Amino acid sequence: MIATEKVSTREIERKFLVKRLPVVDLENFPCDEIAQGYLATESGGVQVRLRKKGNVRSLTYKRNLKNGREEREIRISAEQFEALWPATAGRRLTKVRYEMPWKGHTIEIDVYTGRHDGLIVAEVEFADEKSCTAFKPPDWMDEDVTGKARYSNVLLAHE
Amino acid sequence: MIATEKVSTREIERKFLVKRLPVVDLENFPCDEIAQGYLATESGGVQVRLRKKGNVRSLTYKRNLKNGREEREIRISAEQFEALWPATAGRRLTKVRYEMPWKGHTIEIDVYTGRHDGLIVAEVEFADEKSCTAFKPPDWMDEDVTGKARYSNVLLAHE
Repeated sequence: MIATEKVSTREIERKFLVKRLPVVDLENFPCDEIAQGYLATESGGVQVRLRKKGNVRSLTYKRNLKNGREEREIRISAEQFEALWPATAGRRLTKVRYEMPWKGHTIEIDVYTGRHDGLIVAEVEFADEKSCTAFKPPDWMDEDVTGKARYSNVLLAHE
Repeated sequence: MIATEKVSTREIERKFLVKRLPVVDLENFPCDEIAQGYLATESGGVQVRLRKKGNVRSLTYKRNLKNGREEREIRISAEQFEALWPATAGRRLTKVRYEMPWKGHTIEIDVYTGRHDGLIVAEVEFADEKSCTAFKPPDWMDEDVTGKARYSNVLLAHE
């Protein structure tokens, strides 16, 4: 798939800080190194992001809508990526993402590396509000930081 | 060529308004229809631009440096272009560019179409300051608008 286009209402998800990792071997779960950087970010919420996740490189446009979010993503070649990547200097972050199945959900555990070493965030996406509300986080998930700009990737990258 | 990278000092160029076109048949010169739109523009001068010039589609990152300009451009496929293009709605412009040879220079004549119909701008790039200063514009070139933000493409696109 070369391109995706998604005009979505608000994603139903929750995000938690993780102070201590679950006592399982994370390396057993699917994982990818992610490096991402921002070409441009407008104060109104427009972002143009470059990302390398494993061997998949992409360019993503995101924008806040009145009641949701527009997202357009294209796969790009290594050559296209390398030509643009230097422009993201000073606006990057790196992390390792583990996808941990848990009680019918997939918990994405992002272990930040580099400048944000020590920060670990867990995110769960839900199909509907009901399952979101019903979700009881495992005890290794700490503070609920859902929606807190402080932990948005775009802010972390610009720090 | 899939990608170009250019960190340049200020381009040495002059830009003029054209009130009446030169009395030659412009159609004899190389010409291309150009459609361009902006994915993001930061107040500090960062731009991410999509452009279709003839059949060539590109994505360009531009940024002002202290003493010059950084420009990174990648060729993109029709599919990549089409996935991103809708995001530029309301931030587009269209023009036809003619490349007219004139006394050893190439004059780029941009005839705007659509919303900016009636606007015609001629631009000449020079190898050095000396030839720039020495340049005597032909009489069909009117007001010198070099460096005037009013006639920058990014501003025109956002009008």
